[in-house]
Amino acid sequence: MPHRTAFFVSDGTGITAETFARALLAQFEIRPKMVRLPFIDSAEKAHQAVRQINHTAQVDGKRPLVFTTLVNEEALEVLRRDCTGLLIDMFGTFIAPLELELGMKSNHRVGRFSDVTRSREYHDRIEAINFTLEHDDGQTDRSLEMADVILVGVSRSGKTPTSLYLALQFGLKAANYPLIPDDFERRQLPAALLPHKKKLFGLTIDPQRLSEIRHERRPNSRYASLENCRYEVREAEALMRRAGIRVLSTTHKSIEEIATLIRQDLEARA
Amino acid sequence: MPHRTAFFVSDGTGITAETFARALLAQFEIRPKMVRLPFIDSAEKAHQAVRQINHTAQVDGKRPLVFTTLVNEEALEVLRRDCTGLLIDMFGTFIAPLELELGMKSNHRVGRFSDVTRSREYHDRIEAINFTLEHDDGQTDRSLEMADVILVGVSRSGKTPTSLYLALQFGLKAANYPLIPDDFERRQLPAALLPHKKKLFGLTIDPQRLSEIRHERRPNSRYASLENCRYEVREAEALMRRAGIRVLSTTHKSIEEIATLIRQDLEARA
Repeated sequence: MPHRTAFFVSDGTGITAETFARALLAQFEIRPKMVRLPFIDSAEKAHQAVRQINHTAQVDGKRPLVFTTLVNEEALEVLRRDCTGLLIDMFGTFIAPLELELGMKSNHRVGRFSDVTRSREYHDRIEAINFTLEHDDGQTDRSLEMADVILVGVSRSGKTPTSLYLALQFGLKAANYPLIPDDFERRQLPAALLPHKKKLFGLTIDPQRLSEIRHERRPNSRYASLENCRYEVREAEALMRRAGIRVLSTTHKSIEEIATLIRQDLEARA
Repeated sequence: MPHRTAFFVSDGTGITAETFARALLAQFEIRPKMVRLPFIDSAEKAHQAVRQINHTAQVDGKRPLVFTTLVNEEALEVLRRDCTGLLIDMFGTFIAPLELELGMKSNHRVGRFSDVTRSREYHDRIEAINFTLEHDDGQTDRSLEMADVILVGVSRSGKTPTSLYLALQFGLKAANYPLIPDDFERRQLPAALLPHKKKLFGLTIDPQRLSEIRHERRPNSRYASLENCRYEVREAEALMRRAGIRVLSTTHKSIEEIATLIRQDLEARA
């Protein structure tokens, strides 16, 4: 496998460039070394970046893949002119057809995160994170009516990471509530959740996988035993089915996939 | 301002498509309605998507902007052939030059999140989230040696959201520790942190902004008063300066920007 280096060059954080480049690179059977060059917001910094890229080209004996979301025209021009890598110009490529279609010029604004700290959207996202943390693991029933979504499921079924992702990425206020033996015996969801059925989603997981995850936290405990995991999952699934809420399995789905399914469902209900 | 609709069409979650499209759209003075069409993983679903897009084109009287990261060839072909929107084919556009450069065919794998739940990277990311939650707000000094980074700062300076972002997005184990009057009086960082100076970052914030944020949480409290915020920020900054740790201001920087600066610094130190 030939050695390659991939650079992510951006005026801002480079998170968009990296996210996109990783998705593209996942289409190939290569594992390039990845180098991030964020905050390249002047011609001078672009020259520095080019020196580093061109040096890497010489060392590798292969030209680097250079993914860029630069919007600063001067900086971009330096890369276009002097960089010996393969330039994948993710913004430039699509700006022209969009300008044509929209009948307007682009404003060359840097980064989707610039100056956002005072925006309503950013404020709401931070509020969603705070709400989600305060309502992690059933810590409080207060202001559940403010929640956009409430996740239920047995311990370690993926509620917390999914809730945090919903808050951080989508700005949704996500509470989560564990289902415990008390609930199974009462054969009913926790009473505090009953008024909020429309926001409820259940998470479930294959008992074998759950047992593995729990063993990492508490090796050889009854809590982690396959027998107990089977019992909890069976009871939790029966309970969620009776309550008539949508149940998603985290066994083979990432938190991003689960969060996307939940958002899709919420939008369809709205 | 003409009414426009933007569609994000993907085989997977569509998060890459949406992230990228939002960054591109931020270059224009338009606020299109955004419609997400995730999990379009067959020709049949592509036909459904096309029907929805073409219907919107008729209703809007303007052709929609269709951002796609489809890798499924059949589905993509349906869009190419039948969709009346402006197709921004984010993957297809760059796959061909990459195939040429790399001298190999792409594997048309769907989504960067598929089948990742059993990967080492995913596992480490979930572990980082768990670690970060357990070490939020100085809850415990245990296994601080496992942390990749430790944030310090006064209450509401942005430690928690930044820590969570470092964990969720970058897979970094991020502890955070509040600086409180006790520390100011001792004129020293909390003792538990002293062995970990190389991982420490300080967050600070303009006292005026801090006061606003605290007033939202506890209106008219001494905690939120401008006088108290000025005192805490001044003392915390002096303390961090004496300790010789890098200090970042969250007043005008988003959690993404702060997190990127921290990662960049950590990589430079490594």
